[in-house]
Amino acid sequence: MRYLDEEAIKDIALGAAVLGTGGGGDPYIGELMAIQAVKQHGPVKMIELEEVSDDALVVPIGMMGAPTVLFEKAPGKEEAKKAFELMETYLGKEIYATMPIEIGGVNSLLPVAIAARLGLPIVNADGMGRAFPELQQVTFYLDGITNSPLVMADERGNTSILQTINNLWSERIARSITVEMGGSATVAQYSVSGKQVKDSGIARSLTFAEGIGKIIRHRKKYKLHPIEEVLEFTGGHALFRGKVVDIDRKTTTGFARGVATIEGIEDDKGKNVNLHFQNEFLLAESDGQPVCITPDLICLLDHESGRPITTEGLRYGLRCVVIGIACDDKWRTEKGIETVGPGYFGYDMDYTPIEKLLEQGGEAR
Amino acid sequence: MRYLDEEAIKDIALGAAVLGTGGGGDPYIGELMAIQAVKQHGPVKMIELEEVSDDALVVPIGMMGAPTVLFEKAPGKEEAKKAFELMETYLGKEIYATMPIEIGGVNSLLPVAIAARLGLPIVNADGMGRAFPELQQVTFYLDGITNSPLVMADERGNTSILQTINNLWSERIARSITVEMGGSATVAQYSVSGKQVKDSGIARSLTFAEGIGKIIRHRKKYKLHPIEEVLEFTGGHALFRGKVVDIDRKTTTGFARGVATIEGIEDDKGKNVNLHFQNEFLLAESDGQPVCITPDLICLLDHESGRPITTEGLRYGLRCVVIGIACDDKWRTEKGIETVGPGYFGYDMDYTPIEKLLEQGGEAR
Repeated sequence: MRYLDEEAIKDIALGAAVLGTGGGGDPYIGELMAIQAVKQHGPVKMIELEEVSDDALVVPIGMMGAPTVLFEKAPGKEEAKKAFELMETYLGKEIYATMPIEIGGVNSLLPVAIAARLGLPIVNADGMGRAFPELQQVTFYLDGITNSPLVMADERGNTSILQTINNLWSERIARSITVEMGGSATVAQYSVSGKQVKDSGIARSLTFAEGIGKIIRHRKKYKLHPIEEVLEFTGGHALFRGKVVDIDRKTTTGFARGVATIEGIEDDKGKNVNLHFQNEFLLAESDGQPVCITPDLICLLDHESGRPITTEGLRYGLRCVVIGIACDDKWRTEKGIETVGPGYFGYDMDYTPIEKLLEQGGEAR
Repeated sequence: MRYLDEEAIKDIALGAAVLGTGGGGDPYIGELMAIQAVKQHGPVKMIELEEVSDDALVVPIGMMGAPTVLFEKAPGKEEAKKAFELMETYLGKEIYATMPIEIGGVNSLLPVAIAARLGLPIVNADGMGRAFPELQQVTFYLDGITNSPLVMADERGNTSILQTINNLWSERIARSITVEMGGSATVAQYSVSGKQVKDSGIARSLTFAEGIGKIIRHRKKYKLHPIEEVLEFTGGHALFRGKVVDIDRKTTTGFARGVATIEGIEDDKGKNVNLHFQNEFLLAESDGQPVCITPDLICLLDHESGRPITTEGLRYGLRCVVIGIACDDKWRTEKGIETVGPGYFGYDMDYTPIEKLLEQGGEAR
């Protein structure tokens, strides 16, 4: 157990933007919300999984919707409070703690802000170890845990409680509600017991993000280039160095989809990499050959500062480094690949782990 | 107080198809459901408004969605039960009785079936005095009554509880959920007190429908042609006699929209009437002149049998009589016309009561 203060929040925000693989919304919004909440209510108690009793009720909270909309429609404070109250009434049980459902962008820090405001502890864990666009794309789902009741709230005061027959139906119905709610909504779902988080969640996500963020924020205190330090800390791999030369972007039915083209520089001169995204970067390929495939993490970092570049932050001419980080082993199962592998997102290829792709291509540097 | 048996149900079904002004889904589905329920559980207790105590909880129930879908997707018995259970839990109060929210098509008899199955009485009233396509188009709304909590259930077992800031938001969000649920869903909404139904509902709708249905079903026992008898019973007006020569139909975003063209016969030879519908017939016009305008009722009856023709029953060559019936005075207020008048449905004209149009045109026969 420890307390998250402003410094920790800034580190987590930056690290979560890296782990958000371009998605999850601009982490700056989450950071602002969390800092404001901590200023008002004091630091947030963060507890480790070992400290959560098996029968405690843990309710993750986050935003659903297209990051491009989130950016203009910062989540207010009332929605989450309302969502939690509805959840407690519906379940007839008090919420013991909250947690991020994903460790990407605004959704990594929104629960910190809520925790501060409601005086709840936050659990040092998440349900993805990264960010994904759909509600069933959570490690809890792989173990058959329902995300019902799913409570949604918008900034006007509209709420909805869904109880569905499976998490794909939740995704489907909640997505269309999100569109009606103006493109984004606050969502409390995957109400789990302490035991379920321990068994099926991803441990220590907040401190993992914090470690990455700390390196980038305080890069001058480190020996190596921040990207090298990040690679060492995360066990990741530098895949490509270049500049953004094309961005093809569409916002449809609640998702930010598109492809960014990176033209190689330095050692990668003469080659291109295409980064395909649907809220998150999901596939990096060069000359039709995959370089990194979902669920492994594809992160785009500024080549100088090492700061993460989100899909909505993509600009022509940006110099950047594409890095790849192996995903949690939970995702590398048959159901994991079915849920978040390339086929699910419409890319016609098999999943190959990044370590294997690197061996095959000899691309690691 | 009296009991509704099979005969009463058949009469109500037919009469409600007339009052449904072409919409509300094929009443045969509601009839079948209600008869089956009554066979299993015995006749349904129907109570008059005067018999309902002011603080009793009355919850209307119905189906939402395009009639063309309803026709293929008959509502099951479990959804309504589930919706009522959720409503009771959410409100923390027992439901005393149910009622139809509209007296049109399947929605006039679905609550009869539910009442039989759940052992609840049904109130002899509704919230429209006819049928309308949208959730806020209910006389309760005109008096500022919310339709939240709005409970939805589909045949798979998915449910949703909406709590919105106003009934237009309920309509908007529930409509998109209906589309996701496959085009139709069971909806419990406008939970009202006995006092509220008395003040803001339409009294004696079920027996009004029953009276109309009885005439058409037992037409040989009556002196006049069934259409004449219906006009006398309802105070309606025969507007046009002809045959269907064109149907332009689209099913979009959960509604059955279109225009039917009726070519005049007998006294109306040489003239055409266009019937514009959005689930219900909303506007009858001839040579650009309105003949009957929503919220007044436009009913299409078979010229021989007097049986009602629904929008999905429209067929080329059908010989029919268009009749018009004055709507309840509640609809003829400023808020009423704003909610269900021609402007709301996109017809660029002012509302003129049918009596006035008849005076102007001298069209009554």
